[in-house]
Amino acid sequence: MQRLLYGVAYYDEYMPYDRLAQDIRMMNEAGINVVRIAESTWSTHEPQSGIFDFTSVGRVLDAMHEAGIGVIVGTPTYAIPTWMAREHPDILAITPQGPGRYGARQIMDITHPAYLFYAERIIRALIGQVQDHPAVIGYQTDNETKHYRTSGPNVQLSFVKYMRATFGSLDTINALFGLDYWSNRINSWEDFPSMLGTINGSLGAEFAKFQRKLVTDFLAWQVAIVNEYKRPDQFVTQNFDLEWRGYSYAVQPDVDHFAAARPFDVAGIDIYHPSQDQLTGIEISLGGDIARSLKRANYLVIETQAQAFPNWLPYPGQLRLQAFSHLASGANMVAYWPWHSIHNSFETYWKGLLSHDFEPNPVYEEAKTIGADFARLAPQLANLKKTNKTAMLVSNEALTAIEWFRLPGFKKSYNDVVRLMYDQLYNMNIGCDIVHPASEYLEEYALLIVPALYAAPDSLLQRLNDYANNGGHIVYTFKSGFADQHVKVRTVRQPGIISEACGISYSMFVEPKEVGLKGDPFQVGREHNRIDTWMELITATTAEVLAQYDHPHWGSYAAITRNRFGKGMVTYIGCMTSAAIMGKVLEQAVKQAGLWGLDQELWFPLITKSGINSDGKAMHYYFNYADDPGSIAYRYPPGRALLTGAEVDQNQLLPIDRWGVIIIEER
Amino acid sequence: MQRLLYGVAYYDEYMPYDRLAQDIRMMNEAGINVVRIAESTWSTHEPQSGIFDFTSVGRVLDAMHEAGIGVIVGTPTYAIPTWMAREHPDILAITPQGPGRYGARQIMDITHPAYLFYAERIIRALIGQVQDHPAVIGYQTDNETKHYRTSGPNVQLSFVKYMRATFGSLDTINALFGLDYWSNRINSWEDFPSMLGTINGSLGAEFAKFQRKLVTDFLAWQVAIVNEYKRPDQFVTQNFDLEWRGYSYAVQPDVDHFAAARPFDVAGIDIYHPSQDQLTGIEISLGGDIARSLKRANYLVIETQAQAFPNWLPYPGQLRLQAFSHLASGANMVAYWPWHSIHNSFETYWKGLLSHDFEPNPVYEEAKTIGADFARLAPQLANLKKTNKTAMLVSNEALTAIEWFRLPGFKKSYNDVVRLMYDQLYNMNIGCDIVHPASEYLEEYALLIVPALYAAPDSLLQRLNDYANNGGHIVYTFKSGFADQHVKVRTVRQPGIISEACGISYSMFVEPKEVGLKGDPFQVGREHNRIDTWMELITATTAEVLAQYDHPHWGSYAAITRNRFGKGMVTYIGCMTSAAIMGKVLEQAVKQAGLWGLDQELWFPLITKSGINSDGKAMHYYFNYADDPGSIAYRYPPGRALLTGAEVDQNQLLPIDRWGVIIIEER
Amino acid sequence: MQRLLYGVAYYDEYMPYDRLAQDIRMMNEAGINVVRIAESTWSTHEPQSGIFDFTSVGRVLDAMHEAGIGVIVGTPTYAIPTWMAREHPDILAITPQGPGRYGARQIMDITHPAYLFYAERIIRALIGQVQDHPAVIGYQTDNETKHYRTSGPNVQLSFVKYMRATFGSLDTINALFGLDYWSNRINSWEDFPSMLGTINGSLGAEFAKFQRKLVTDFLAWQVAIVNEYKRPDQFVTQNFDLEWRGYSYAVQPDVDHFAAARPFDVAGIDIYHPSQDQLTGIEISLGGDIARSLKRANYLVIETQAQAFPNWLPYPGQLRLQAFSHLASGANMVAYWPWHSIHNSFETYWKGLLSHDFEPNPVYEEAKTIGADFARLAPQLANLKKTNKTAMLVSNEALTAIEWFRLPGFKKSYNDVVRLMYDQLYNMNIGCDIVHPASEYLEEYALLIVPALYAAPDSLLQRLNDYANNGGHIVYTFKSGFADQHVKVRTVRQPGIISEACGISYSMFVEPKEVGLKGDPFQVGREHNRIDTWMELITATTAEVLAQYDHPHWGSYAAITRNRFGKGMVTYIGCMTSAAIMGKVLEQAVKQAGLWGLDQELWFPLITKSGINSDGKAMHYYFNYADDPGSIAYRYPPGRALLTGAEVDQNQLLPIDRWGVIIIEER
Repeated sequence: MQRLLYGVAYYDEYMPYDRLAQDIRMMNEAGINVVRIAESTWSTHEPQSGIFDFTSVGRVLDAMHEAGIGVIVGTPTYAIPTWMAREHPDILAITPQGPGRYGARQIMDITHPAYLFYAERIIRALIGQVQDHPAVIGYQTDNETKHYRTSGPNVQLSFVKYMRATFGSLDTINALFGLDYWSNRINSWEDFPSMLGTINGSLGAEFAKFQRKLVTDFLAWQVAIVNEYKRPDQFVTQNFDLEWRGYSYAVQPDVDHFAAARPFDVAGIDIYHPSQDQLTGIEISLGGDIARSLKRANYLVIETQAQAFPNWLPYPGQLRLQAFSHLASGANMVAYWPWHSIHNSFETYWKGLLSHDFEPNPVYEEAKTIGADFARLAPQLANLKKTNKTAMLVSNEALTAIEWFRLPGFKKSYNDVVRLMYDQLYNMNIGCDIVHPASEYLEEYALLIVPALYAAPDSLLQRLNDYANNGGHIVYTFKSGFADQHVKVRTVRQPGIISEACGISYSMFVEPKEVGLKGDPFQVGREHNRIDTWMELITATTAEVLAQYDHPHWGSYAAITRNRFGKGMVTYIGCMTSAAIMGKVLEQAVKQAGLWGLDQELWFPLITKSGINSDGKAMHYYFNYADDPGSIAYRYPPGRALLTGAEVDQNQLLPIDRWGVIIIEER
Repeated sequence: MQRLLYGVAYYDEYMPYDRLAQDIRMMNEAGINVVRIAESTWSTHEPQSGIFDFTSVGRVLDAMHEAGIGVIVGTPTYAIPTWMAREHPDILAITPQGPGRYGARQIMDITHPAYLFYAERIIRALIGQVQDHPAVIGYQTDNETKHYRTSGPNVQLSFVKYMRATFGSLDTINALFGLDYWSNRINSWEDFPSMLGTINGSLGAEFAKFQRKLVTDFLAWQVAIVNEYKRPDQFVTQNFDLEWRGYSYAVQPDVDHFAAARPFDVAGIDIYHPSQDQLTGIEISLGGDIARSLKRANYLVIETQAQAFPNWLPYPGQLRLQAFSHLASGANMVAYWPWHSIHNSFETYWKGLLSHDFEPNPVYEEAKTIGADFARLAPQLANLKKTNKTAMLVSNEALTAIEWFRLPGFKKSYNDVVRLMYDQLYNMNIGCDIVHPASEYLEEYALLIVPALYAAPDSLLQRLNDYANNGGHIVYTFKSGFADQHVKVRTVRQPGIISEACGISYSMFVEPKEVGLKGDPFQVGREHNRIDTWMELITATTAEVLAQYDHPHWGSYAAITRNRFGKGMVTYIGCMTSAAIMGKVLEQAVKQAGLWGLDQELWFPLITKSGINSDGKAMHYYFNYADDPGSIAYRYPPGRALLTGAEVDQNQLLPIDRWGVIIIEER
Repeated sequence: MQRLLYGVAYYDEYMPYDRLAQDIRMMNEAGINVVRIAESTWSTHEPQSGIFDFTSVGRVLDAMHEAGIGVIVGTPTYAIPTWMAREHPDILAITPQGPGRYGARQIMDITHPAYLFYAERIIRALIGQVQDHPAVIGYQTDNETKHYRTSGPNVQLSFVKYMRATFGSLDTINALFGLDYWSNRINSWEDFPSMLGTINGSLGAEFAKFQRKLVTDFLAWQVAIVNEYKRPDQFVTQNFDLEWRGYSYAVQPDVDHFAAARPFDVAGIDIYHPSQDQLTGIEISLGGDIARSLKRANYLVIETQAQAFPNWLPYPGQLRLQAFSHLASGANMVAYWPWHSIHNSFETYWKGLLSHDFEPNPVYEEAKTIGADFARLAPQLANLKKTNKTAMLVSNEALTAIEWFRLPGFKKSYNDVVRLMYDQLYNMNIGCDIVHPASEYLEEYALLIVPALYAAPDSLLQRLNDYANNGGHIVYTFKSGFADQHVKVRTVRQPGIISEACGISYSMFVEPKEVGLKGDPFQVGREHNRIDTWMELITATTAEVLAQYDHPHWGSYAAITRNRFGKGMVTYIGCMTSAAIMGKVLEQAVKQAGLWGLDQELWFPLITKSGINSDGKAMHYYFNYADDPGSIAYRYPPGRALLTGAEVDQNQLLPIDRWGVIIIEER
C-alpha cells in the first residue's frame, strides 16, 4: 500500500436526501481517500428474495472513483432483511435467552443453511457486480462477526459431533470433563444434554471454544467466496472488535482472532475508546498491538470514533492525537464511523464526522488537517515496521475459564488482569506485541507477560518452561497454570507444571480484605500498597521473595516472587495488585530482561512509539495525553519533526502541546 | 354540581363480615357524601359467563341512598374473572415479556373481540340495572386504563393496517422511519416485522402512539355504551392516572390524556404523593393542573390517599392540607382509596381511611373535620374557576422519543425535565395550565413553558414561532425541536425550525461532568451552580447570552440564551440545570412576560392558589407545607377567612399553622 | 451411638485417578471415621435406564470397612441422569421461570410419577445391594431436598384437589382468601387459575405451604422404602439445610423441617458460615439448635466447610473451634464437604479438606488434631444432653407471609428478625431451643422468644396467651398476631388476640426515617439508639411503656412495652430495633424470667455452652471467637479441662487462645 488511508463508513442508503455530490466534495476537502460501503444494507440491496438492487452501490462507486476516493465493499451479511426472518424464522439464533426476535443486527444462526444459502447468493451477486470497478480497493467480509451465542438444537447437534470427532469416546469426555459430578455423566451419545443448561465449566468452556470455531469457519467460508472474485490489487479484510465495555476494552471473548485472521489479506479492527478527560491512548495502543500481531503486519483501523457519544466529543487536538497514535502502532488506515450522524433508528447518538446537519463543524475542521498531513506525509508514515522484544500472551481459553470460575467479588475478570498489566507497560512506554498459545513466535521475545493463564495444556506450559530455561524472561500472574485445557484443575501442587520454573508452590488462596504488602516493598505509598480480589499463599522453593502479605495469619507466605531458571528469569505475581505495584514489578522485570531504554525516561501522559518506515528510517512518535502542555527530551540521533518540518538535535528539549503530537524521522 | 363531593372507594364485596350499616353510619359522621363502587369486582358480579349477580351493588345503592350518599358506579372491566381467562387464555395480552399470566388486573388485550364482547355485556347488564337508581350520580368507565403493552400478533396486524392507512406506502415508511438502517427495510407488507423486537426508535415511537390510540378508542367505545343509559343528571368520568414512580409523578406515557378525555363529561384523576416530611403539594398541584386542563373545567379527584403506606401515614393536619389543596386547584371532589384497609391479597398495606379494625383512628377523625368543612363551605368552595396566563406544553410524543433515545446516564427522562420546570413554577406560586401539541388554546397564554419538545412536527414549531412573533413568551429546554414527529432528527442546524426564534444554533452536545455556569450568573451559590446530564454547545446568533459553561474547552459556548423575536421573547435553556438555576431562569421569564405579581412574595413552603368562585368572588388559598408554623401577609382586598370566619384586612399578617390552611374569600 | 463421628463426603467417582488407598490412609491419619457416599452420582450408578453399576460403591465400602471407617450411603435422587431428562423432559420442574433445563441438580418435579418410579428403582437397587455390608452405618435420603418451586400443570392440579379437600367449598376459599379482590373470585373448580401468576398473598402462601408438604411427603416416601432394608443398627437421616444467603442463614423457607424430620431416626444438617474475621459461631449455634430441636435429640452435622471458598479458608485454630462448637450444641457428628477439592464442573472453588493436589495442608493438619481429640474424648463428649429454658418460636407460615407482604425498603425479611433476636441471645450466652407452632413442648419453657409471628391461627395465639397467663414469659416483636393462618389480616384492633396479654393496642404503623427511642432508655448511646424499617404506633392499655419514639409527631406512642399478664410477663417490641437495643430488651426479659445466671458473666466473643454428658456429668465449653487471646473465670464446681487434662478449680481464671477452646467436665 503506497498511501495512508483516511476513511469513513458511508451510507448512501441512509441519506435523508441526495447528498452524494456534496458529501464527496466535503470528503475531498478533508482528505478522505477511502470509504467503506454496503456492509449494513442487505435489505436495500436485496429487497425481496433473489431480487437485487445495487443502484446505490453503483452510483457511489462511480462518484467515488471520479473523485479519486477508493472504496471497500462489505458483504452485507451481518444484518438480515425482514423478508428472510419472515420466511425462515428459524434463521434467528436460539440463545440461552430463548428464540430470537427480528429487529437488531447479528441475531442469526451463522450455521443455518438457509442463512448460508442467502448469504452466499448476495455475496456472489454483489462482489460479482463490483469486482471490476476501478474504485474498489478491497472487501470486508461481514462485520464484527461473532457467534451471537447461537446454541439451538442444530448447533447442539454439531457440537455433539464435534465432541465425538475430537475426543472419540464418552468415557474420555466423562473423565476429562468430570461429568460424574452432580450426575451429569453421559453414557450414550443420544443423551448428550443441551449446553443451554450446563453447569459444568469444562463442558461450557469447550462449547465456547466450539462457538469461536463457528466464527473462524464462517469467516473463512466468506473469504473463500470473495477470493473467487477479487483482483490481485484488491484485499480482503475483516472488522474485528474487542471485548466491549462501553468501549473497546481488551481480548474479544467470542472470537479466536488469531485463527480467524488467517485467511485475510490484512487485519482490520474497530477501536472505540473514552475521550475528553478520559482519553489515554491505551485502547488505541492495545487494539493496535492486537491487530498488528494478528498477521504480524500493518493493519487497518476500519472503525473509530469521530464525534460519537456526548461524552466522547473530542476536545480540540484530540482527533489529531488519536489519528497519529493509530499510525504509531502500525495502522495504515484510520476510518471514522460514520461519515454523517444518522437521523433515525438506533445509533442516532453515535455521531459521525458530520453532525445531523451535514455542515462543517469543529471536528470536521480538525479532520481536514489530519487528511492534509496524511496525504503530505504518507511516504514517511505508511507501513511503519515495529520490532518489539516484549510480548503479552493472551488466551481465549483462559478468559472463558475465568468466566466460568469467576474471581471473588465478581467484579474483575480475565481482561482486567490483561489491562492491569498492559496499562502499566503502556504507561512506561514499553512496546509490546500480542501472542497467543499457538503462536510460532514466542521464542523471539526477550520478555513474556502472561496474565492469568488459567487454562492451558501441558505442552504450552512446558514450552514456557523451556523458553525461560533458554534465557527468556516471564512475568506470570496468579492463577496461571492452574487448570489444563479442559479446565480440569491440575492434581499436583500449584502452579503445577510451571512450579519449578517459578520456584514456588501453593495449595491455598484467599480473598484479601484490606491487605497490603508487608513493609511496602515497592515504595508505592500507603494508598497504593494494596491488593484485592485474590491472593495465593505461596511458599518459595527456589525463588526470591519480592513481597509478602501484610496479614496477621498469612504474613509468612510470599505474594510476589522471582526465580532464576536456567538462563532465564521468572517472576510470579500471586495476587491482584494495585496498578502502582504492578508498574513496579513490571519495571523490575523489564530491567532484568535488559529492555529498559531511552524511551523509559518518559512516562504517561507522555507517550512515545517508534518503528522503521518504508525508507528504512527510524521514526519516533511523541504524544502528550494530557490537558496541560509538556516537554520531552529527544534522545535519538538528529532528525526532522515531520509535522512542522523543524530539524531536531539529539537531546533537544521539545515543548509539546496539550493533546499534542510530535513525529520525528531520524536522518 | 351544587356541592363538594367527599368520597371513598367502597367494596362491600371485600368485607370480612356485613359492615354496611356501620360503615354508612361512620361515613355520615365523616361527611362522606359519595362512594365509588363496582369497578374491581367483575368476578363477583358475573360469577360465570352470562350469569349476573348484582346483589352487592343493589344493596349498597339502596343503603347509600337512604343515607343520602351518592354513588359512582364503575364498569368492572379492568380486572377480568377467572372463568374468562380459563375459557379464552388468548385474551391475556401478549407483551414484550411474552404471554400473560392470570392473576393481576390490567392484563388483558383491550382490543381482543372476546374481551370486548364480555365487557360490553357486563356494562350493559350493570348500567342497565342501576341507571334509574336515585343514588347513582355518575359512572366511571373501566379504571386507570392503559394499553398494558399489548403487542401480540393481532395487535401487530392492526398496527400494520394502521401504518398503511396512515402512510400509504412502504417507500414512505422506509424513508420517514429510516428503515434502510441495519437492513430493517420493509419491501413487502407481509414482511412487516413484529414490533416486539424492533430497534428502530422511530418505528417504536409510532407503535407507542398507536398503542395510546388503542386506549383512546377503547374508552370512547365504553363511554358510548354508558351514554345509552345515563340520565341527564348523571355524568360519565374516567379515573386517569399519571406516570407512576411509586407515586403520581408526571405525564402518563401510555395514554394521550387530552384525546382520551374528550368523550367524558368530567375528568377524573388519581393523585398519590409522598407524605410526612416529603409532603410538598406538588403532585396535588400538577395532577390538578393536568386534570383541570383536560376539559378546561373542574375535575374529580377520584382516588387519593388516606393512610396508604407506612411512609405516607399523614402527620396531624396533613389530610386537611391535602384536601383543601385539591380544591384550590379546581377539584370538586376528593375521594380516598379505599374506605377500609383490605384484609387479603395484594394491597393490604395500601391502607384506607379506616385501618383493618374498622375503628375510628386519628386519620378518620381528621377526615370528619374536612367533611364538615366541605359541607359547610361548599357554596363558596365548589366550582372554583381559574384563569392562568402561563401554560406548560407537554407531549406524549416527546416523552416516548426520549425513552427511545435516553439521556446520558440513563437516570433522567422527559418527565424529569417536566418536573424540573413545574416544581420551580410551583415553588414561586405561578399558576399554570397544561397544554398539548394539538391544543386550540396555546395562543391564549402569555408565557409557554416547553420542556424538551424533542419530537414535534414542523407545524407545531412554526406555530410556536408565530406565537412568539406575535408577542408570546416561550421558555424552551434543550432537545426541543431536534426531531420531527417520526423521531427523525432534523437535517438542518439545530434547533431547527425554532432556531431563528431562539436566535441560536448548535451542532454539538456533550455530557457535563462537574460543570457549572461561568461566573455563577444567577447567583445561586457554588453548591447550586451545577448542570448535569446534557449540555448543548450553543452559538448565539441574535440571542442574548444569559450563561456560558464553566469549562476549559467549551467555555465559549452559550448555555442559556434569550432572544427577542418579533413582539415576543424566547428563552432557551441548553442544559439540564440545577433546580436553583431553573428557578432563576423561570423567574426572569415570568417577569419578562409581565406575570410577576403579589403571589410571588410568597415562596414554597408557603403556597398560594386562587380563583373565582360560583358567586364570582375572588378566592385565595394559603397553605403552609412545612412542619413549622409560618405567617403570610395578605395582599388582596379585605375578605373573610372561611375556615375560621374571621375578617381579614388587606396587608394583614396572618399566622399559619404547620401544615396549615387559610382560605380567604374577598368581600 | 458410642462414638463421635468425624467425617467427610467422599466421591470415588470424581477422582482424577485411583486414590482410594491413599485417601483412606490419610483419613485414618486424620481420625476420619465416617464417610458419606453416593448421594450425587446417580448417572454413574445407573448409566442407562435399568442398568446398574455399583462398582464404586462396593469398592469404597470394602476399603472403608477394612480401614475401620463407617459409611453413610445416600440415595442418589437429587441429581438426575442425562438419560432421564432426555427420555422424559417433562420430569424437569416447571417453575415461575418456565420449563426447566437439564444441567444443575435439584431441577426435577419431585411429584412426577416417572421420576418417582426411577427414584424408587435406584433406591431399592442401591440399598438392597449395600444393606448387609458391615461398613454401612446409616442412610441419607436424597440431599438438601426442597420443592424447587415446582408448579407445573400437574402440581397445580394437585393443589386444586388439596384445596378442595382442605376447605370443602369455593365459597369458603373465596371468603378466607379474599378472592373477590381484583376480580380473582373463583366460582367453578375448573376456573381455578394457575398459581404461577397469582397476586393474592393468601393463596400464594397456601401454595407455598402445599409445596412444603410435597417435600414432607417425598421424604417420608423415601424413608419408608429405605426402612424396608435397613438393619436395626443402621439409621436413616436427612441433610436439611437452612435459608441460604451465601451461607446458612436461618429458617428454611421451602421445607417444614419439623414435619419433614418426623420419619427420620436422626436429624442431619448442613451448616456453612462466614469464616476468617467474620467467624462468630452464630450459624453453628443456630443450625445446631434447629437440628437438635427437630427430634429433641443429638444430631449430625452432615456437611460443613473445611477450606471452602477463598474468603472462608480458616485461620489457624478456627477449624478446631468450629468442630468443638458443633459438639457443644449437641452434634454427634462433624463432617466436611468434601474430602478433596473437585477438579471440574461447578464447585471447584468450594474446596474440601484436601486441596486439588491431595497433599497434606495446614487445614488437614489441624483436622488431624480434631480427629485425635474426638477419638480420645468421645466417651466424655458424645451424646451431650442439653436442657434449655428459653425457646424461640419460628414459623414457616409467618416467613412466607412476610415474603408476600414485605417490610418497607425490601431489605429485611422474617429471618432478619429471627437473627436480630437469636444473635443477641447467642451474644449473651443464653442457651435456646427452637420450637414451631405445632410443638407439644412450648409450655416446658420459661421464656419464649417470638419473632414477627405475622400469620398464626387463633388457637396458637390463644395458647400463647394461656402460656403467659400460667406464668410464661414471652417477647414478641412487631407484626406478631397481625394475620390469621390464611394471611387474612385480623379485623380487630391489633395485635388482635394477643392484645390483652401484651396490654397494648394499635391501628397505625409507619416506616421510621432517622428515628430513635426517646431519651435513649436502654443507654446504648447515640449511634446505637436507632430503629429502622418498621414502627407501630402503640397505645399501652395495661402495659408498662419501656420506650417511646423520639419523633415530633409520633412521640406519644409506645415503642416497646412490658405487661404482667396472669402469672407471666409479655414484652412487645413494636419496631425493628438496633442490635444493641434488642440485646438490652432481651437481657431484661431473661432477667424477669429468672434465667440470668453465671454464664451471663461472659459475652461474645467469649461464648459458653453446656450440657450433661453420657456419664451424667456437667460439661462446660468455652470458646473465644476473637483474633485476640482472652480469659474466662470458671464459675462452676471443680472439673477437668479435657483437651489439656488440667484440673480446674471453681473461680479459676483461665487464659484462652485466640480462636481457642476449653472444655471442662465437672468432677
